[in-house]
Amino acid sequence: MMKRMLGIALGMLALLAFPLSAFADDGATNLELQAGINSVFVFLAVMLVFFMQAGFVLLEAGTVRMKNAGHVAGKTVLTLGISVIVFWAVGFGLGFGNGNGIIGQTGFFLSGEGMASSFDSLAFSDVSLTVKFLFQLSFAAISLAIASGGMAERAKLSVYIIFGTLFMIVIYPVVAHWVWGGGWLAQLGMQDYAGSTVVHLTGATAALVATFLLKPRLGKYNKDGKPNVIPGHNQVYTVLGVVILWIGWFGFNPGSGLSGLGDFFGYVSLTTNIAAAGGALAALAISWMVFGKGDIPSMLNGVLAALVAITGSCAFVEPWAAVIIGAVAGIVAFLAGQWLERAGLDDPIYAVSVHGIAGIWGALSTGLFATAELAEKTGVGQAGLFYGGGVHQLGIQALGVVGTFVFVLVVSFIILGIMKVIMGLRVTEEEEMMGLDISEHGTYGYPEQMKLITDAEALSRTHKSTPPVN
Amino acid sequence: MMKRMLGIALGMLALLAFPLSAFADDGATNLELQAGINSVFVFLAVMLVFFMQAGFVLLEAGTVRMKNAGHVAGKTVLTLGISVIVFWAVGFGLGFGNGNGIIGQTGFFLSGEGMASSFDSLAFSDVSLTVKFLFQLSFAAISLAIASGGMAERAKLSVYIIFGTLFMIVIYPVVAHWVWGGGWLAQLGMQDYAGSTVVHLTGATAALVATFLLKPRLGKYNKDGKPNVIPGHNQVYTVLGVVILWIGWFGFNPGSGLSGLGDFFGYVSLTTNIAAAGGALAALAISWMVFGKGDIPSMLNGVLAALVAITGSCAFVEPWAAVIIGAVAGIVAFLAGQWLERAGLDDPIYAVSVHGIAGIWGALSTGLFATAELAEKTGVGQAGLFYGGGVHQLGIQALGVVGTFVFVLVVSFIILGIMKVIMGLRVTEEEEMMGLDISEHGTYGYPEQMKLITDAEALSRTHKSTPPVN
Amino acid sequence: MMKRMLGIALGMLALLAFPLSAFADDGATNLELQAGINSVFVFLAVMLVFFMQAGFVLLEAGTVRMKNAGHVAGKTVLTLGISVIVFWAVGFGLGFGNGNGIIGQTGFFLSGEGMASSFDSLAFSDVSLTVKFLFQLSFAAISLAIASGGMAERAKLSVYIIFGTLFMIVIYPVVAHWVWGGGWLAQLGMQDYAGSTVVHLTGATAALVATFLLKPRLGKYNKDGKPNVIPGHNQVYTVLGVVILWIGWFGFNPGSGLSGLGDFFGYVSLTTNIAAAGGALAALAISWMVFGKGDIPSMLNGVLAALVAITGSCAFVEPWAAVIIGAVAGIVAFLAGQWLERAGLDDPIYAVSVHGIAGIWGALSTGLFATAELAEKTGVGQAGLFYGGGVHQLGIQALGVVGTFVFVLVVSFIILGIMKVIMGLRVTEEEEMMGLDISEHGTYGYPEQMKLITDAEALSRTHKSTPPVN
Repeated sequence: MMKRMLGIALGMLALLAFPLSAFADDGATNLELQAGINSVFVFLAVMLVFFMQAGFVLLEAGTVRMKNAGHVAGKTVLTLGISVIVFWAVGFGLGFGNGNGIIGQTGFFLSGEGMASSFDSLAFSDVSLTVKFLFQLSFAAISLAIASGGMAERAKLSVYIIFGTLFMIVIYPVVAHWVWGGGWLAQLGMQDYAGSTVVHLTGATAALVATFLLKPRLGKYNKDGKPNVIPGHNQVYTVLGVVILWIGWFGFNPGSGLSGLGDFFGYVSLTTNIAAAGGALAALAISWMVFGKGDIPSMLNGVLAALVAITGSCAFVEPWAAVIIGAVAGIVAFLAGQWLERAGLDDPIYAVSVHGIAGIWGALSTGLFATAELAEKTGVGQAGLFYGGGVHQLGIQALGVVGTFVFVLVVSFIILGIMKVIMGLRVTEEEEMMGLDISEHGTYGYPEQMKLITDAEALSRTHKSTPPVN
Repeated sequence: MMKRMLGIALGMLALLAFPLSAFADDGATNLELQAGINSVFVFLAVMLVFFMQAGFVLLEAGTVRMKNAGHVAGKTVLTLGISVIVFWAVGFGLGFGNGNGIIGQTGFFLSGEGMASSFDSLAFSDVSLTVKFLFQLSFAAISLAIASGGMAERAKLSVYIIFGTLFMIVIYPVVAHWVWGGGWLAQLGMQDYAGSTVVHLTGATAALVATFLLKPRLGKYNKDGKPNVIPGHNQVYTVLGVVILWIGWFGFNPGSGLSGLGDFFGYVSLTTNIAAAGGALAALAISWMVFGKGDIPSMLNGVLAALVAITGSCAFVEPWAAVIIGAVAGIVAFLAGQWLERAGLDDPIYAVSVHGIAGIWGALSTGLFATAELAEKTGVGQAGLFYGGGVHQLGIQALGVVGTFVFVLVVSFIILGIMKVIMGLRVTEEEEMMGLDISEHGTYGYPEQMKLITDAEALSRTHKSTPPVN
Repeated sequence: MMKRMLGIALGMLALLAFPLSAFADDGATNLELQAGINSVFVFLAVMLVFFMQAGFVLLEAGTVRMKNAGHVAGKTVLTLGISVIVFWAVGFGLGFGNGNGIIGQTGFFLSGEGMASSFDSLAFSDVSLTVKFLFQLSFAAISLAIASGGMAERAKLSVYIIFGTLFMIVIYPVVAHWVWGGGWLAQLGMQDYAGSTVVHLTGATAALVATFLLKPRLGKYNKDGKPNVIPGHNQVYTVLGVVILWIGWFGFNPGSGLSGLGDFFGYVSLTTNIAAAGGALAALAISWMVFGKGDIPSMLNGVLAALVAITGSCAFVEPWAAVIIGAVAGIVAFLAGQWLERAGLDDPIYAVSVHGIAGIWGALSTGLFATAELAEKTGVGQAGLFYGGGVHQLGIQALGVVGTFVFVLVVSFIILGIMKVIMGLRVTEEEEMMGLDISEHGTYGYPEQMKLITDAEALSRTHKSTPPVN
């Protein structure tokens, strides 16, 4: 007992009296080391989430036709360029800077005096500010990639530039502030660990508006309203894209704790991973039941839908619940995708069903499956309906979903609606027929292969033997 | 001297008397920081090994014909989904849980009380349990990817599902337990740092059985038994796949020490890397001698064979030995691949020669080149034949190879043999002709390009001018 | 005050008297932990820079025609194999070993006694030596990848092997030693944080010589000297390659500090990232102005040129300057590329404009924009012209550029000139027409698609209806 007291006394003495820098010869202090580990970990997460842009290049390009593939791929780099500049200049400050319940008002351009104290909402973590910025930037850019997916194969290039810029100012940062920047949903205790709502539902809602205003692609619907399948031109791309996205999600979800210490990022990795697997198997199974064959695009969408759903709940639920959340997401996204297509919504890369519907399911799922222990551990919200928390958390989740959906819907409608009137959103019919690679950029993405296709189509028009590929 | 003693006395006093949590204001303790560094490092390794699945997507898809590419790519996601669920549920417990010399018996579903004490075989490392699980899972999934490669271009989709599930229960975890889970080969001191035997030979032996039972692809052999080359459809994919796999091996091998501290993971990276380079150059050279031109697929297989071989020995050998092990692997895999093809084994992605033969060479190579110093450092086995250890270690390595090969051969034969009788392993001739994209999934992976090919084939059948591509 | 003195006394006592190993039960020491964090961080950077090879596979393969794609892709693995072996054997010692102002002379083969003290130029960092080696190796391999790009579509395979080997011995290590290995440019205080000069200008200058000596590709220029566009065959590849390269640059630049502690690697990530975005937008804009459409390859080159330029200056400049440096690089590389093409230089992957011209701009940019604070922080050079430093630093930068350019130009000219006389650099006209996949390797990279193309060309020659794709 006396030894213990002496030890404590000595320790306190050292803490009070001993400047940290006196230990410099022994390397960094424990606080500096801790910050280093956390910063390196989050930097790894940033790399993984940035890499998801490569996944989107492959997923989107593989899902469209050859005549639009260069355009769709290249547009990803363009929207990335816009995201980086705009989010650095204003988006990060609007989303995470100090402000009120609606919007942040400090920290623009991430330079100058007082930066360190401009982001109270992120002050809980000792990760360096620039790395926190890169992490949030990588999320914002994913949300825009989702939104732009809804415009595939028919929107003008200039539309991406203008809408992307505005999305990064008046749409994404606002929702991010509400949930993660200390805004009104954060104050209510909404649980959205890595962005089922903030990232995915936001992007998907903008995509929904774009899809609605742009109208379906030529040839998508027959005169009787029955949809035609317009298959993507390269399933190796789409599969590769989904594998990359799956890996990228290990940055998205585990990284969101902003800490590489302790075992929690491993736990979040586990729930994320088994949810994805559950989504793959469930979606493959339902496609097999419905189509009579195991459909690869459906399985791939099942993986993504599961990942979207577990994004919000990964830190709040038990492993078995993660599998269920993923499997349900895979099935729901499949059915929703089928229904939306029949209902007349031509959403080429399934942004609405995979990121929107599954995002909503993910947001609600924590209201059902969140455990009291994990809610306490993360410090956000409380237990869900199935764990004795009643409907309180579920109600907050639903409020967050409705609030986000309505806000993004209205603002996107205003922006795209005005753009439609002033400049038009869509290329001409002739341009759409020849493909956006030519119409928007002047060269095919696949010049040699497109020559074969256009020659064959010319030949077939002459001989009227085989119809052209749509 | 007295100062020194006083210092030690004070230090011991502090260690005994001072609760770690009293330092909380100074950040995490050194033990927590150490665990953090190791966990983040292994998490990075997990990302790299998971990314190898993308490498396999590209390698396998690029190596088959266009009509099967979507199927082969998509199957990777399917087997990944199965691996994740089954290895989480039972595989990890069977492989690494506490048990006897044959199999583990604890730690299923990775949740519930007592998890921490269910994995004595991994208790040497302070990496968090979930991250250890993800690391082992990523290895298991690679082994299954190799096994499934032997089935390419002719096995039914349902075969992958059933065989993949059983592989993850009764094949891979058993071998993993023997060598890494405290089983009989571990007790004998078998050296297999990252799985030349456990991962690669196991997967390749299953692929061998599948290849044997499935019989060669249509058109692979002429009536006189002479093999035809069926070239893969996309060498950019295969090259890219190999570059990704090469990078992924920096997770595979260096990660297997489960520690980011000290200089040993760097050393393992060095031996791994120069072995791969040696394999590339040796295989290119031998292909040039044999074919008269530098053959790209042979060079790529040389890289992989070298990496497979150094997987087991990377931590036990000197750099110059690593180059030799890699170069020999590249040459042996080339010659074995040529010989197996002539002998009637149609192994489309060279799983048997690259992962099997090179895996055996890798396992034996430590019995030759292991140094006493490195064997002591890793704490496994002893010096090899060329370093004064006699044939003792070589004998254990050979025993491990034979034991693994016979076990996997027999069990795979039983599983696939029964499946062959009950449900058949192979699609029909007509289905194989049209390709598995259509037969198993109902859509081409490359709809626009396949239309050109099928139109051209139809035209050529009419005009009998040019023969169809096989 | 007395408490403070007592604390200091106790602390000094402990430092002097207390062996570090006595803390072993409490985990690694702070110095060991610090080295661990830094080594894991640099290892992550190595992975990112190695991954840039995948980016170059895609960028180069996508930029050439289908008949050369397998060759161009496969050559990357070959040059990687050569780089690894030669840089391990001699290149690292020549570049970073102890020596004089011109060349290093110690540390070959990275093994044996005294390794630890053979690399004084890298001793400032506690990262483990093998990881430092891998990091420098990954840089050297990038420089060679750039150099080899200038040879695309017409150089013999054997030329890559010989030139690549010599480049890794007598070209790259020399420049690396001058700037980073304690050589004369290091002594003058040249600022080149991650290699605008060492890596990019060196590779580009060799590419310039190769391009000049090889002469333009068949069909590139009409008889009147006007250039034809020879579009690359796959823009999805090139976009994907650029996204991967962009991500890889987060290893290139932030990794070059060799430390994961503190906030500086995050700062370097920030300047790197916003420069890249600036380059993307500026290059897209100027291509739009010049061509009347937003040109995707130009935008992609703008990203790369910006990254090349910021490579040298990322640690020395303020964020706003980074955006300007990137934007100017994008515009300058575009204009230079157009001008060089008209001037008769056929540089298929724009190595000279993107890596050379932008590399020079990057080297000079620190002479303009370097701040005194950041120059002090990195401990290299001093403030630039716009920050009160006068023309001193700008002069040193210019000297470094001229010295590097002249040295690499002369040595490359000697090597390639001799090779041209003895063995010839270029395949025959007939081989070039059929493509290097066939001429150098005996098989097409895309056998099924090339059959369609060659059949269509044969048909068109018969019917003289449509001209063949160039």
